[in-house]
Parts: sequence; structure tokens; C-alpha cells
Amino acid sequence: MPADAMESTLALTEALVSRASVTPDDAGCQKLLAERLGRAGFDIDWLPRGDVSNLLAVRGQQGPVLLFVGHTDVVPSGPVEAWQSPPFEPTIRDGRLFGRGSADMKASVAAFVTACERYARTPDNGPLRLVIALTSDEEGPAQDGIRAVAPRLPDRLGPVDWCLVGEPSSSQRLGDTIRVGRRGSLSGEIVIDGRQGHVAYPDQADNPLHRLAPILAELIDSDWDSGTADFPPTRLQLTAVDTDTDAVNIIPGRASARFNLRYAPASSADELREQIQSIVARYAPDAGMQWFHSAEPFGSPPGRLREAVMSAIHEKTGQWPTADTAGGTSDGRFIAPLGAEVVEFGPVNATIHQVDEHIDLEAIDALSDAYEAIIRRLARNAPSAD
Amino acid sequence: MPADAMESTLALTEALVSRASVTPDDAGCQKLLAERLGRAGFDIDWLPRGDVSNLLAVRGQQGPVLLFVGHTDVVPSGPVEAWQSPPFEPTIRDGRLFGRGSADMKASVAAFVTACERYARTPDNGPLRLVIALTSDEEGPAQDGIRAVAPRLPDRLGPVDWCLVGEPSSSQRLGDTIRVGRRGSLSGEIVIDGRQGHVAYPDQADNPLHRLAPILAELIDSDWDSGTADFPPTRLQLTAVDTDTDAVNIIPGRASARFNLRYAPASSADELREQIQSIVARYAPDAGMQWFHSAEPFGSPPGRLREAVMSAIHEKTGQWPTADTAGGTSDGRFIAPLGAEVVEFGPVNATIHQVDEHIDLEAIDALSDAYEAIIRRLARNAPSAD
Ligand SMILES: [Zn+2]
Ligand SMILES: [Zn+2]
Repeated sequence: MPADAMESTLALTEALVSRASVTPDDAGCQKLLAERLGRAGFDIDWLPRGDVSNLLAVRGQQGPVLLFVGHTDVVPSGPVEAWQSPPFEPTIRDGRLFGRGSADMKASVAAFVTACERYARTPDNGPLRLVIALTSDEEGPAQDGIRAVAPRLPDRLGPVDWCLVGEPSSSQRLGDTIRVGRRGSLSGEIVIDGRQGHVAYPDQADNPLHRLAPILAELIDSDWDSGTADFPPTRLQLTAVDTDTDAVNIIPGRASARFNLRYAPASSADELREQIQSIVARYAPDAGMQWFHSAEPFGSPPGRLREAVMSAIHEKTGQWPTADTAGGTSDGRFIAPLGAEVVEFGPVNATIHQVDEHIDLEAIDALSDAYEAIIRRLARNAPSAD
Repeated sequence: MPADAMESTLALTEALVSRASVTPDDAGCQKLLAERLGRAGFDIDWLPRGDVSNLLAVRGQQGPVLLFVGHTDVVPSGPVEAWQSPPFEPTIRDGRLFGRGSADMKASVAAFVTACERYARTPDNGPLRLVIALTSDEEGPAQDGIRAVAPRLPDRLGPVDWCLVGEPSSSQRLGDTIRVGRRGSLSGEIVIDGRQGHVAYPDQADNPLHRLAPILAELIDSDWDSGTADFPPTRLQLTAVDTDTDAVNIIPGRASARFNLRYAPASSADELREQIQSIVARYAPDAGMQWFHSAEPFGSPPGRLREAVMSAIHEKTGQWPTADTAGGTSDGRFIAPLGAEVVEFGPVNATIHQVDEHIDLEAIDALSDAYEAIIRRLARNAPSAD
């Protein structure tokens, strides 16, 4: 393989995909990347926590900070026999690279690293500090990854100006969509205790389902807010209902339901909790409730990073991306509270977490080009540090 | 033990309770009873089916038929250590007989047998044929018990005039309640298929719970009929709801619910099915539905048997019983279609199917006295045959 090919973004992506880094196992991905980044002038800090590998790479002493956030872990492959080619053997077919993690998000990580390498080879760069934070705990509990790294950044870097997250944000083709925030996520469980009994004697029992059903109907029917400029309205989904018996002739003694809200910053988690608790209390004042608040919403108003990302995409593709806040949450939620402008931009997400995950070959180089253009735009416009 | 005590209803009840006849095992109860009945002039037919023991005892060649229906099987004891005395060791304490089956319904069976014995010892009885049908499959599936015996009765007996079922019908004290019919029982299951997906992307999924919840709310809210003179209005109970996933972040792919209706003859099973199907169709036209129709309602208008039972109870207790149609179904449902007048009269049901099941000692003899009085009333008033 010629030196050029060794250094190509495709080759680096393949090298990462061939390492079976099922969360939280990094499987040597970060070590490989650290060697590359070290040669490009980055200082490497290792910040492991338990089984989780975290890497912080910093290049430059002055100027505003562009932090790239990525993960080297992947979700399990699912049934290997359902794949057309083995999930951890990167395979090129029909102009695409197949393999677990190819789209989420080893190509993004490789693309940003090669973009940095090209940037580092040119003289006269502006005063920009390039920082890369990688973890192997994004697809898992996400407790020991960026969540744990973020609080250490202010001491190490001072303020973080911009945060580019490499998650696969695109929908149909590379760059059609970027994310400028994420909705909050609030889950809850309602448990209603009644008194079990025989269906023939309902007066001697107390059917908890008869109190739960109207609660669920009302939860589905409720409007929570109208969203914001960047965020769609808050939505609730019921995710499970269960009873402690399932015989046809027994009135259950307990019924429970679970639900999740993806919510806009137009509502707070406290407001939603209160609204739901008052619905529940109308039908079942003694119901038990449990809450799991897994993510605050975060969103950045349009800033220099969003402008750089959109311009770079327009320059490379001729089209302007849509900026939205759809989808699940991301590690960007841990960086936003530091005051950084957060934008997510990465490959098409159509096959992530699925069998035969893949990325178009041409998207790999295009992504690296776009990342390089973003870096250069921010460096060019960065105020002189002094 | 003196001969008198050997023949007492209490002693016979104890002998039955000491036989651990957990359904469908008769454990020798019917053999013991057959010996007693043979000595009292009954002809015995054995009608076993599989594991199930069925006994048919007939005394007399002419006159109207009084059929007593009973069962020798019992429900399992539940945790033995929760009982104050072992469930299959009949134990007298505080003026009560404790043991599994003491109230449901070994005391009734013993009481009717000793009533027949006393009746048989007196001369000049009227032209009444006494028939006893016992099974060991009432607490189980009830497929091979009275359901299988009933179709053979017309050939053996001609028409059955009266059917006295010994089920524990009483509520607070012996004879406060008799049953003159039972509601029908119709169960159903609704299965709604949607499309599973991540809660963050509800537009790419189809949440079956969001269609099921309003159906359940409407089922609970519906009125079905206003009952009849003997029957309370039809009532529906939800008995189970389930989903194929119970993660907080997954929209389930399937949701299902089960329900049961106890219904008055004011509605037919077909009408109820149609009414429910039209509710379901409004929210989920593609829902799958399964039905289980376990019992038609049956009820007898006031007749000679009801009159005899009520008068006997009034004579023994000074109070008139309430005649109702509450509770689950009973083996009376298999006899009613033969044209018989069916009445159920037995002990207090407060502890049946529970730990520490018991019956008051004085209720045992009082029940046998009442049964004897019913037999004598019917014999006295029976039209002379031919
Ligand atoms: Zn990812
Ligand atoms: Zn019974």
C-alpha cells in the first residue's frame, strides 16, 4: 500500500472498523489515533475510567478552542449471519464501505483526524487550538465518557468556544442536515396498586387498570408546548404497560405504565413532571411515580461555528443544510453547559445500529474535506489571541 | 367413637377434608360417599373420564327428580406454612372446622348425604326420586365433570325437575343468600400491531399503545345494559395489558389487552361482541381480536324448588334469604339447559379458596337439616306419579 493510501481517510476508517470496539471496549482504536495525532503535533492526555478509554488531544497554545467530540465504541453487531459481510471486516461493495461503526462514527473520527493532519501540514494557520476528545462510552451508559471528561476541560483549556460533534446527522445525503441542539429526555413510570380479585366479584376488588386507562388516554391527548424556533413541540410516547397477572378471570392487583417525553426548551422537566402528576392524581391519587431525567435539552443560537459548518457544506455540495434538533441525545449535551456553541455534523444515519451498516465511499473524503474547510474558516476568522 | 358420631355430618365432612382431593384428584372421596349412599338405598353409576371421577347416585323409581350437584375436588392449599393448621388435617378451633374444602364444598356434600340418610330411614315418603351427581372436575377445567355427565341424564332419569347445587352461596351467615342463576362470562383479547422504533423518532414508528389506550378508556366508560329483575347490569373488567417491549426508550411493536364481561341475559354474547368490535374498529381497524365465551347466563324463574329452599331456610333461621345471581359461574349452567329449575344453596363463602378456609360447626348440622327440610317439602308436595 503506498504511503498516500496508508494515510487516506478510507484506510484509517477501515483500520478502525477492523477493531471490534463493542462498547465500552476501545479495542486499540484510540492508541492508533493517538499515534497519528502525536505525529501531527497534538499533546495526548489519557483519561481512562474503569473499562472506558478517554483520550484528549490538544494542538496549539493560543487562540479560540475548536473541540471535536467523537466516540470509538460501537453498538453490538446483532446476528452476524444476517450481515452480507462480517461486521468487523471492513468490506467495500457497490461504492460503499460496510462494517459496524462505519457510519456511527468511525468515518467521522478518521475524517477529522486526517483533516487535522492536512491542516497541520500547511504554514500560516491562524491562532486556533484544535482539541479532540474521544471516548469508548457513548453507546453504553455514557457515565464514564464525555460526561466525566467535560468538567476537566476548563482547567486544561480555558473556555471552549466551539464544539463540533461528529455524530451521523445527515439524512439522505452527506450534509443535508446538521443538528444545532437536542431535545431533553424525561422518562417516567406510573404504578397503581389496587386489590386483586376474581372478575366475578369486582366490588370486592379494586381494578388498577380502570384508573390507569383514562390516565393513558389523557397523556396521549395532551399538548405540552409549541416548541421553539429550533425545536419541535414536546412529544410523549407510551413505551410499556404491564399488569401483575394476565389471567382472563383475575382482576390484577397492580398496573404500571412507562412513557418518555422528548422535550423542547419551551418546557422544563419540572413543569412536565407537575403537569403529568396532576393528571395522574385526578384518577389515582395514590399512584407511585418514578422519574428518570436522562437529558436536559440543549441548543445553541446561530454563531460562528454554525456559520462555518453551513458555509463549508454549501461550498462542497452546493446546497445549504437544514439545521434541526431531532433525534436522540448526544455527548454534545455535556459540552453545551460549558458555554460552547455546539453543532453536530456527520454522515448519513440511515443504517446506523443496523445490520449491514455502511457509508458511501465518496462521503468519507467529502466529510474530511468539509471538516478541513470548517477548521480553516474558524482559524482564518479567529481573533488574534495575544 | 359411638355410632351416632360416626354418622354425623361433621364426621363425614372431616373424613372428606382429610382426603387431599386437589382437582382433579378425587382421592377416594366418592368411594366413601358411594358406600354410604348404597346403604341408604341409592344405585351407583360410575362415569369416569380420564383423571376425573364422576358419580351418579339414584334412589327411587318414580316421581319428580331432585338432583343434587356437588364436587369433591378442591383448589390447591397454597403455602402450607401460611395455614394455622395443616390444610388436609381437619381441625376444630373456636367452634369452627378448618381445612381445605371445608366450605367449598365438602360440608355441603356431607350434609346432603346425611340428609338423604335420615330421609331414607322414615317411612311414607312421597314419590320423589333423589339423585346425586358428584364430580372431581369443578375447580379445574370443568370439561370432564358435570358438563360431560349432564347429557346422559335425560336417558337415565327422564326430565330433571329440580337441581339443588351445594356451592357456598351464603355471604355473612348460612342461608342469607341463595343463587337463582348466574351471569354469562365472555372474555376477549385485543392485539394491536404497530411498528417498533426509538422514542426519539416517533414519526418512523407506529405506537400501538396510542391506539389501545383510548379503546380501553372507552370500554371502561361504556354501559352495556340495565340488567333484569334477577340480574345486575352487565359489567366489564380489564384483566391485563401488555407490550412486547418494556424499555423506556423503545416504542413497542405490539400491545394487547384482555378483558372479561359478566353479563346479564339482557344482553347476548353476540351483541356484546359487536358493540366492542365497533369501539375497537374506530381506533384500530386492523386490530386482532380473540374471544372466549365460557358461559351463557342462566336463570330460573321462581318455582317449587326456590319456594322449598326459601321456606326451609326461613323455618330454620327465622329469616328469608336474598335470591341473587352474583358470583362466578357454577356447574348449574350445565343442568339449566335440561329445563330444570336450578337453585344454589350452601355455606358462607368468605374463606373459600383462601388460607385457613373454614366453616362454623353449627352451620354443618344446620345445612343438613335445611337440606332434609327441602327434600321433605318437595316429596310432600310432589304430584303422585301416574
Ligand atoms: Zn454515535
Ligand atoms: Zn365449589
